Amino acid sequence: MGYTDLDKLAINTIRVLAVDATSKANSGHPGAPMGMAPVAHVLFNKFMTFNPQNPDWINRDRFVLSNGHGCMLQYALLHLFGYKISMDDLKNFRQIDSITPGHPEAHDTPGIEVTTGPLGQGFANAVGLAIAQAHTAGVFNKPGFDLVNNYTYAFFGDGCAMEGIASEAASMAGHLKLGNLIMVYDDNHISIDGDTKCAFTEDVMKRFESYGWHTEWVKDGDNDLAGIEEALRKCQQVTDKPSVIKLTTTIGFGSKLAGTGGVHGNPLKTDDAEQVKARFGFDPKQSFVVPQEVYDMYHKHAAEGAAKEQEWNQLFQKYQQTHPTEGADLARRLSGKLPEGWEKSLPTYKSTDAAVASRKLSEAVLEKIHDVIPELLSGSADLTGSNNTRWKNAVDFQPPQLGIGEWSGRYLRYGVREHAMAAVMNGLAAYGTVIPAGGTFLNFVSYAAGALRLSALSRVRVIHVATHDSIGLGEDGPTHQPIETLAHFRALPNCMVWRPADGNETSAAYYMALTSKHTPSVLALTRQNLPQLELSSIDRAMKGGYVAVDTPNAAITIVSTGSEVSICIEAAEYLQKQHGVAARIVSIPCFEVFDVQDKAYRLSVLPDGIPVLSVEALSTMGWERYSHEQFGLNRFGASGPYKEVYAKFEFTPEGISKRAIATIDFYKGHKVRSPVNRAFQQIL
Amino acid sequence: MGYTDLDKLAINTIRVLAVDATSKANSGHPGAPMGMAPVAHVLFNKFMTFNPQNPDWINRDRFVLSNGHGCMLQYALLHLFGYKISMDDLKNFRQIDSITPGHPEAHDTPGIEVTTGPLGQGFANAVGLAIAQAHTAGVFNKPGFDLVNNYTYAFFGDGCAMEGIASEAASMAGHLKLGNLIMVYDDNHISIDGDTKCAFTEDVMKRFESYGWHTEWVKDGDNDLAGIEEALRKCQQVTDKPSVIKLTTTIGFGSKLAGTGGVHGNPLKTDDAEQVKARFGFDPKQSFVVPQEVYDMYHKHAAEGAAKEQEWNQLFQKYQQTHPTEGADLARRLSGKLPEGWEKSLPTYKSTDAAVASRKLSEAVLEKIHDVIPELLSGSADLTGSNNTRWKNAVDFQPPQLGIGEWSGRYLRYGVREHAMAAVMNGLAAYGTVIPAGGTFLNFVSYAAGALRLSALSRVRVIHVATHDSIGLGEDGPTHQPIETLAHFRALPNCMVWRPADGNETSAAYYMALTSKHTPSVLALTRQNLPQLELSSIDRAMKGGYVAVDTPNAAITIVSTGSEVSICIEAAEYLQKQHGVAARIVSIPCFEVFDVQDKAYRLSVLPDGIPVLSVEALSTMGWERYSHEQFGLNRFGASGPYKEVYAKFEFTPEGISKRAIATIDFYKGHKVRSPVNRAFQQIL
Repeated sequence: MGYTDLDKLAINTIRVLAVDATSKANSGHPGAPMGMAPVAHVLFNKFMTFNPQNPDWINRDRFVLSNGHGCMLQYALLHLFGYKISMDDLKNFRQIDSITPGHPEAHDTPGIEVTTGPLGQGFANAVGLAIAQAHTAGVFNKPGFDLVNNYTYAFFGDGCAMEGIASEAASMAGHLKLGNLIMVYDDNHISIDGDTKCAFTEDVMKRFESYGWHTEWVKDGDNDLAGIEEALRKCQQVTDKPSVIKLTTTIGFGSKLAGTGGVHGNPLKTDDAEQVKARFGFDPKQSFVVPQEVYDMYHKHAAEGAAKEQEWNQLFQKYQQTHPTEGADLARRLSGKLPEGWEKSLPTYKSTDAAVASRKLSEAVLEKIHDVIPELLSGSADLTGSNNTRWKNAVDFQPPQLGIGEWSGRYLRYGVREHAMAAVMNGLAAYGTVIPAGGTFLNFVSYAAGALRLSALSRVRVIHVATHDSIGLGEDGPTHQPIETLAHFRALPNCMVWRPADGNETSAAYYMALTSKHTPSVLALTRQNLPQLELSSIDRAMKGGYVAVDTPNAAITIVSTGSEVSICIEAAEYLQKQHGVAARIVSIPCFEVFDVQDKAYRLSVLPDGIPVLSVEALSTMGWERYSHEQFGLNRFGASGPYKEVYAKFEFTPEGISKRAIATIDFYKGHKVRSPVNRAFQQIL
Repeated sequence: MGYTDLDKLAINTIRVLAVDATSKANSGHPGAPMGMAPVAHVLFNKFMTFNPQNPDWINRDRFVLSNGHGCMLQYALLHLFGYKISMDDLKNFRQIDSITPGHPEAHDTPGIEVTTGPLGQGFANAVGLAIAQAHTAGVFNKPGFDLVNNYTYAFFGDGCAMEGIASEAASMAGHLKLGNLIMVYDDNHISIDGDTKCAFTEDVMKRFESYGWHTEWVKDGDNDLAGIEEALRKCQQVTDKPSVIKLTTTIGFGSKLAGTGGVHGNPLKTDDAEQVKARFGFDPKQSFVVPQEVYDMYHKHAAEGAAKEQEWNQLFQKYQQTHPTEGADLARRLSGKLPEGWEKSLPTYKSTDAAVASRKLSEAVLEKIHDVIPELLSGSADLTGSNNTRWKNAVDFQPPQLGIGEWSGRYLRYGVREHAMAAVMNGLAAYGTVIPAGGTFLNFVSYAAGALRLSALSRVRVIHVATHDSIGLGEDGPTHQPIETLAHFRALPNCMVWRPADGNETSAAYYMALTSKHTPSVLALTRQNLPQLELSSIDRAMKGGYVAVDTPNAAITIVSTGSEVSICIEAAEYLQKQHGVAARIVSIPCFEVFDVQDKAYRLSVLPDGIPVLSVEALSTMGWERYSHEQFGLNRFGASGPYKEVYAKFEFTPEGISKRAIATIDFYKGHKVRSPVNRAFQQIL
């Protein structure tokens, strides 16, 4: 061990940088960085393997700061170890367009693995990173080739510990016996409301033990560097359980307000900042100072990491020779490319094919593509038989000693843990070797809203297989029937919401979801059967919207999605027969993809001159963008056989026709412009 | 104890009714009712006090079926005890417009306390009901008047136990030492994916102990009625902790598929249903049969409950004489009326008053009204100082032995548990004597989406104080800046979303939130200061939308909300000065309330003849309903000082003016109809 004054200096340098950056920004959280600097120093400098020159090296140890508000801790470390975060970047903390934003964002800042800050998310991301490591090792490691063996480390605080998502993820990690996962719980007794005794008095370690975790306690996390090191070593030795170290620390260590809520979320006052610097041997009047010996020590460790990557590259070269198939597969995965020609496996349909529920169509896709896309990891939040997410010969991802699966298994049993599932998928996607897909009912993707938002913000490819997507689920009733859900996820930036109307559209949805490397997808799928459309094709559906029934001299365009498209087609026939009115039918399975087609195409789908009526058995919110009038469900649904529920709310050929006629009448004599025409472009 | 064959007959009657109803509906979950019938029988018939003739009696024991898919258990019990649920209602299980829908819904079915089914929700609702009881007792009970002393009982299964929301609520209940809360965990080892060993192998009882709960275990929950009774008695004796009984049961007890996933979510096959009936001594060919002696036994218990209510009514009469002030207060609360004239306490503002952040304006409302509305219980998910939800002399709701509050305290420390907070508030509101308000950042109300959805569906008055409502929160950055959030909650039926622009609008929002007894509210409030508007008033804002700047011969209407209204007013001045263009400004603080104004009024606000531009610094989704063109933020925000963030995205007088001019030009020469004009009415 042998810690010296240099270690203390390094720790205090981190503390002072956090003080300086939050002071300069006049915003931010100095408390957690000052309290956790000792464990961060020991962990990064003694345990973690990484190469700042290549933050993407696949076998690097992962670090997640789940208490992301303490991000100056992480930014300071990344700067000191030589990642591409300059001193100027630290000075730009929390400023517009900096790479050091208010909470860590994975897509722009080198060395940030996942986007954290919303509490509990990083915790679950770390579980996902650890699962991805265990799976990748299970698939690729061979005798003599311990190719993938990194650890995932995470810090979390009382806030994360209170969040349900972290509880879900911790229970899952315990079940999965993830020995490659080591977390540090910053037991500082302070949250925003002050002392945690006002709301959080449970025995946190006992809880983690109940989940099956190994626990350690370092009582003096402020000073006991040897104790921290020892605890981390012990955790590494426990290979069949995830580990958590309770680290009792003083928030804002060094500040006059140390140990109080006053130092949690506000910069230190000037005099306090100065006394901190003086106490730690820094010039009170200078800011953003790093002693050269601190840089030297950290750069030395970084160089060791770079050397380890070199060794690893040689090992991987040998591996590719010895195990050419697996080697080529891993190399391809790391390149971010899907296997050549995989899309030929996507099922296609003719209109004479049988009517099938889109959840079954989704299953057919998975059945066809799982062999050609080995990085696809499916799963479900305990609705496997309802979501149809498991291909027939799938093997579960499980610790082998349970006898019900393998580390190399590609089917995850997430349990009834929708929020953790979504955040674990973010971690899986961030690892770099797998593509996660996970199922639940569409209505319960809402439980995961906090995580899906971060999928979109951090630009990861995750696929939500969201079945039972409307009142069409029938008897389960309003508690399970989504109304607001599609509007919600359509309003979320960088998230594709697909609601396919048939088999070809379902294949198109998967094509787009799998090839959009920086965008999450929600696939809204039916419980009930859907006929195969005449004009649908993968190519047409891939445009996000297309003409499903083209009728000359139409008086109206009816635009719809999913299960309502075929009812609209029946409505068009009814309109022709009963009213002598010609109607065009448009299917828009994905707003986001349709929006980025060129204007001429969009105008060809939604032309000027005739009014547009939208039909979707959920909230009409958002449909005004594609239609003049909207038919939908701006109330909760009903429990009953699904055809009766559809009839109750008039989603029938008659009900749609009635509204089509009203729309045509309303716009008679008016010059009708397509909703595609806009006065100005949105900011994107 | 002394259980007889009659008890067994009653239990088997419940089981057979669950088989019959799910068979007739050809849908539903027989397994949980068959497994939990014994504990339900003992609990309802030996422990619970209730009067089926008056399901609203305030001191009744509460029962929550958190595993709501097992609702035939609850419907059967309610029918057998004489609630207004007829045998025909049972035969209409899961049929359109029945009072026996697929999951229990509180608003239509007598005896259903809260709406459950989405897993984990009922668990947290039960914690809310127990808090409400403890608080109401703390306020009203006096020596000799143990007026409010009911228990809250809840059943939950493995699904609920896995959900994070239940973990949050359990931790909170343990901290609060809720001795009036007794739960039964249906330890049947089966969830939808089959054996729980595939995903859920934690030690559940150890986890509850870590939260501070008392635990019991009944190993033979199928048969050991005396053991069940003993465990419930022991739990009642523990008055300083919530209790949970692990009840090991056989799902689908009696079925050929007992103990397997096959009996969880599907009706029994005909031959299985028949053998179940034969096994339990029923005629295999008859359905929906209740032996008269079962009715007699349960009706006897119901009559005892009715008599207890009579006694209680007499006690309450005496109480009103002895404690006239408290008696009148409780009587008023039970009548559902707010105190006469309370609204006079709402603060009002003149345009010359200082600019104030709406989170502070919200605090000013709470400061003014907390004395006149004693049933208001405020709180926060660990953001008290940021949400400004705590009035100055507030007392915390805490177990007195902690020394930091009282049972009668009116400020709840929810901890960092947003989802549980929202669901606990649903339980608080369902109790009948309190009105809950709870704070977090608007962005993190999304964590609570599952619970807020049930607030709306079950029609309860809860108030979400949702501060930091846009990019205006500044430095915390995109992880904390809501974009999709308002669209999401606006799309949710029966939910009021308010985004007030100034003090009078904030007061109006509270007026509507507090007087809408069957609707939850989300109040979106700023971190940054807002000027007081010239034309705002509580009365005008109460209409949901009004003209904030009326300009003769305007070429455009600019419609906005919250912090952007005053920027739009500046834009109108800029347009006049720079372009000689007159603009009207409209504020629509609440879509839902504006929508129900008469059409003439709405047309006066958004008149025909000139185009409308909307401005809101969040997703434009939904704004097409009130405007021809939309200016908003359909991407994630940025971390930086808020004025710079506003400038980056052009939410400035110049940026708005540019788009106003584009809008005017685009509609030049077109006959412009107000968006208020619609071809047909929506289904509501």
